Amino acid sequence: MDALVESARRKGSAVVVGLDPDPSHLPPELSERGLPEHLAARELCLGVLEAVEPYAAAVKLQSAYFERLGPEGAGVYAEVLRAAGEFGLPTIADVKRGDIGPVAAAYAEAHLSVYGATTVTVNPYMGEDAVSPFLEEARKLGRGGGAFVLVATSNPSAEAIQGASEPPLYEAAARLVENLGRTGFSGYGDAGAVVGATRPALGRRVREILPRALFLSPGYGAQSGDASGVRALLDERGAGVLVNSSRGIIRAFEGSPGVGFKEAARDAALRMSEDLAGAGVRA
Amino acid sequence: MDALVESARRKGSAVVVGLDPDPSHLPPELSERGLPEHLAARELCLGVLEAVEPYAAAVKLQSAYFERLGPEGAGVYAEVLRAAGEFGLPTIADVKRGDIGPVAAAYAEAHLSVYGATTVTVNPYMGEDAVSPFLEEARKLGRGGGAFVLVATSNPSAEAIQGASEPPLYEAAARLVENLGRTGFSGYGDAGAVVGATRPALGRRVREILPRALFLSPGYGAQSGDASGVRALLDERGAGVLVNSSRGIIRAFEGSPGVGFKEAARDAALRMSEDLAGAGVRA
Repeated sequence: MDALVESARRKGSAVVVGLDPDPSHLPPELSERGLPEHLAARELCLGVLEAVEPYAAAVKLQSAYFERLGPEGAGVYAEVLRAAGEFGLPTIADVKRGDIGPVAAAYAEAHLSVYGATTVTVNPYMGEDAVSPFLEEARKLGRGGGAFVLVATSNPSAEAIQGASEPPLYEAAARLVENLGRTGFSGYGDAGAVVGATRPALGRRVREILPRALFLSPGYGAQSGDASGVRALLDERGAGVLVNSSRGIIRAFEGSPGVGFKEAARDAALRMSEDLAGAGVRA
Repeated sequence: MDALVESARRKGSAVVVGLDPDPSHLPPELSERGLPEHLAARELCLGVLEAVEPYAAAVKLQSAYFERLGPEGAGVYAEVLRAAGEFGLPTIADVKRGDIGPVAAAYAEAHLSVYGATTVTVNPYMGEDAVSPFLEEARKLGRGGGAFVLVATSNPSAEAIQGASEPPLYEAAARLVENLGRTGFSGYGDAGAVVGATRPALGRRVREILPRALFLSPGYGAQSGDASGVRALLDERGAGVLVNSSRGIIRAFEGSPGVGFKEAARDAALRMSEDLAGAGVRA
């Protein structure tokens, strides 16, 4: 994850901007043009990307919204990843893939090499077999990337699966991160953890198990997490968390009538970066 | 899952043919032609599809191998699904997606509606939120499709995650299948379970929890599962299991020098169907 940590430190921002292009939530300046859905998604993502670049540690592409656009969506996904690369902005392919050995290796090659994302998100249900091939591919590429493993997610029904057994599943997933990651020059391992900001006590427990892992935390803004929820996830340096906001930035125009979607996204990313810094979240 | 069960009964076959196009394992008649990888994958899948159609209850497309081919791979994925539909052959999009509410809904729309698969495989790590949208989309489409939820997978490292807590994770996943599925005219629910054939005792335990669910069982052939492993998964009618073979069929040509890949695949599918029937596995 060295590439992400380096970017966050250089920008002084722990913000990850989620690119979730939803054709039912287009800004007026795009919906007016009557573009095909995949071209509207392309304009939206490239516009937000350029606007937020100075304030974002990374961008996260939500694969589902590109897949929904069919084969042309795969082309847009490739193009947005390429554009981020040209800005020097690290990318997180939010694919949450989870499959065994050779299939995981094919997914890793797809998203890290063929499409060129810096990092991916990975689902640990099938165990170590499903995680290792992503780390191996990232190491082979040597671009400071890695994989974020789902550990404790922020959605309402997660608890019944992730926390209802003894020992809880999130602990087993955290052990995978601990055992499989290799620490890079940034001080963080190339296996990170997805940990929601909505349940601080749980977050603190995961941080105890993983004192030196980089966390990716969804749930800021739209999912009712806030900067105080993020603080529970910090490491002893007061850092180690990248915080994602998707709707709060890509759909910021909805709360700012008369302001273009790029300007609204830029303002929202800057405000979020300042909010996190003000709460003591170091990049 | 009515569409799959109906197809299996009509063909008298519990065989699911896995389409995992791997460009490093092409039959000589395709590798000789020097096609671009995505076109070789297309020829391979369409050829196997046509060859096995009389003996297969369904085909299963492994998404990773199509994603690895980049945006052109997404086009091939679409085309193979369409071709299967023209044969009246139900399809399983083996995508193992697992994400929350609106994202899961976007994945469901992508694979069931936009790409047109009959069913999908789903990862339950994020709980009910990650499974329900697939069932809702399948019900809306009304084509007798549904979703297979990963319950007990056949890979070596699965046990450390799925079976190492109390109660074990596979039980929680099985409860999701039980609680979310709705029984169709075939007698099986539209939520099915992925259960490996390599650990019979575990399979019997999952069948106790889910007496009326349709199982999708990988691990036949290449992963050292066999017809006797499948028997442990049968319901009280001696049915309720669809058995997948990928490499054993799509790469059957490797064990049959001088025989074309289509003929080798057809022979392997027929042999597997007879092997299962001989072991008392009813379609």
